[in-house]
Amino acid sequence: MSPSSQVRFGIIGCAEIARKVSRAMNLCPNATLHAVASRTLAKAQAFATANSLPPTTVLYGTYEALLDDPDIDAVYIPLPTSLHLSWAIATARKKKHVLLEKPCAVNVTELDQIISACEENGVQFMDCTMWVHHPRSQVMADFFSDPQRFGQLKSIQTCFNYCGGNDFLESDIRVQPDLDSLGALGDAGWYCIRASLFAANYQLPKFATALRNPVYNKAGVVISCGASLLWENGAIATFNCSFLAHLTMDIAAVGTKGSLKVDDFVIPYEEKSASLTILSNSNFGEMSLGWTEKPIEQVVKTELPQEAFMVKEFSTLVDGIKNHGLSPEKKWPVITRKTQLVIDAIVASFSRGFEPVEVY
Amino acid sequence: MSPSSQVRFGIIGCAEIARKVSRAMNLCPNATLHAVASRTLAKAQAFATANSLPPTTVLYGTYEALLDDPDIDAVYIPLPTSLHLSWAIATARKKKHVLLEKPCAVNVTELDQIISACEENGVQFMDCTMWVHHPRSQVMADFFSDPQRFGQLKSIQTCFNYCGGNDFLESDIRVQPDLDSLGALGDAGWYCIRASLFAANYQLPKFATALRNPVYNKAGVVISCGASLLWENGAIATFNCSFLAHLTMDIAAVGTKGSLKVDDFVIPYEEKSASLTILSNSNFGEMSLGWTEKPIEQVVKTELPQEAFMVKEFSTLVDGIKNHGLSPEKKWPVITRKTQLVIDAIVASFSRGFEPVEVY
Repeated sequence: MSPSSQVRFGIIGCAEIARKVSRAMNLCPNATLHAVASRTLAKAQAFATANSLPPTTVLYGTYEALLDDPDIDAVYIPLPTSLHLSWAIATARKKKHVLLEKPCAVNVTELDQIISACEENGVQFMDCTMWVHHPRSQVMADFFSDPQRFGQLKSIQTCFNYCGGNDFLESDIRVQPDLDSLGALGDAGWYCIRASLFAANYQLPKFATALRNPVYNKAGVVISCGASLLWENGAIATFNCSFLAHLTMDIAAVGTKGSLKVDDFVIPYEEKSASLTILSNSNFGEMSLGWTEKPIEQVVKTELPQEAFMVKEFSTLVDGIKNHGLSPEKKWPVITRKTQLVIDAIVASFSRGFEPVEVY
Repeated sequence: MSPSSQVRFGIIGCAEIARKVSRAMNLCPNATLHAVASRTLAKAQAFATANSLPPTTVLYGTYEALLDDPDIDAVYIPLPTSLHLSWAIATARKKKHVLLEKPCAVNVTELDQIISACEENGVQFMDCTMWVHHPRSQVMADFFSDPQRFGQLKSIQTCFNYCGGNDFLESDIRVQPDLDSLGALGDAGWYCIRASLFAANYQLPKFATALRNPVYNKAGVVISCGASLLWENGAIATFNCSFLAHLTMDIAAVGTKGSLKVDDFVIPYEEKSASLTILSNSNFGEMSLGWTEKPIEQVVKTELPQEAFMVKEFSTLVDGIKNHGLSPEKKWPVITRKTQLVIDAIVASFSRGFEPVEVY
């Protein structure tokens, strides 16, 4: 790939997650990290030093300055969720492509403004749900869509937890109502919802119903909760997401003909190898003493970590728009919007006494 | 063990599951299958032939005749659920110990009559939930009760499904309202509820709430459904049970310090080897590129299948009562009753528009 087709990224905001994504940009053959901005130049410099960024990386002390840099094609935005609306729109208006951390917005109304701004300015929008870009996810998608091996989705149980610890629960960005009002639902539940949609071939459920055990911190942000999603055809998803439980990243999906399990779907145990476990057409053995078929573990080895696959996919789309006259890929904002719609319905279910809320 | 301490079993009813349990009795060192009764002698003879029972096995053409046999210590009752009340009570009144198939009763009112009859007659009561007797379950219990490796239970997701097929869904005992009115909830959900109680150290949840996707057959029996169980401390269980989905027998439990998974909890894939997967005190690795600890698969090898461990445990208790002046072990009816209480609450939730129903 010639240097001119390398997508030049800027990052606004030096969140912890930006370390991982900046590393991915430098691992990725069709991307390069061009500039980093923080609210002060000192912070940007500290980030560059801490992450051994090459000295050619341009550093800015304001986000605006980075957005004005004509050498930048695309901007990665790891800011707190409440700031996404203004900065994602500002980015799009500068004709820069938008790679936006999840949760993408505090609600779908704000998300729609972001997506509209991207459409109006002809720039690509993609959220930072990394796992869907792992090659393992394609193997999962192939299995889910196989009428012989998986059949029709009947149920999916997912879970994403981690132990935030006391400092985290009091002061992390993700538990502050003015920064990330969606708390564990937006941070961890986002992945469970995405996995449930993924297994349902991105069909929206008809109803979302919050489970009756949300836990809130003193500031009123949810730090542990769950929900069920019900599709028109009777398929159901249930999930738990929490900052109060041991690290868990489970998918267990069951169809009419088979089942699939992944135990590290958000972040694989290892960078370059990830597995899924599938089982098809098994039954009770003679006299129900065992099973006729046993699950098979399938290992997917990769050269890059999943976040680099994300950057690569995004950069390919940006290159297509920039150099080959293509239009932005609509699939990504559509998937983001569906995820956010489900989030919004669950939030509504919390406030309506855990009643089912229609998702549309 | 001397022959006199061998518990002599009778079986009333020649259900498919009786094949497996009769085999277990003959595998088990402290039990022997003494007699089998069916509604006709020909049926009992056919069962004996099909299962190669020894010619010494006494065959009866009525259940009453078997209950009158003075050589029988204990009776295994695999009859349809609606018949449990009368036959379990009749068994107890004949001073014979009661090993009762699940679901044990159509509701807890009937179950209480059965348990009372057993208490009044000084006989042991135990239900036939086989998996809790597998040595693997002791390893699971040790893990769940370990404050360092598992901590406090936060959530458990379970699932037991199988594909009944068309004939099954129309005519099997388990889908006939006059025989097994609890359908998939009583047959498959029973196990999920038991596993949830097991993980919660048999503390009853405060509320049970049916999920909003039950499927009924033409006769009005539920053939697919799910529920959530909520404990006072905020722990939650969700489960799916179905005759309409691929064979699945999952436990995924998460505590504050660890997690546990079993993918074949009801019937292990193999008779003499079963595994569980545990993980403790893991965390995000540096830059969240992976996990600090990975799950460990623990294999439990056994000489006997789990149903033989069940028969052995029951027979040990019967021997204690018969030959050593011990009292019946109250733990087993207590656990059965808790399971049935949850079933009843879910049935009530169905009829109350999926509202949470208090479990007590």
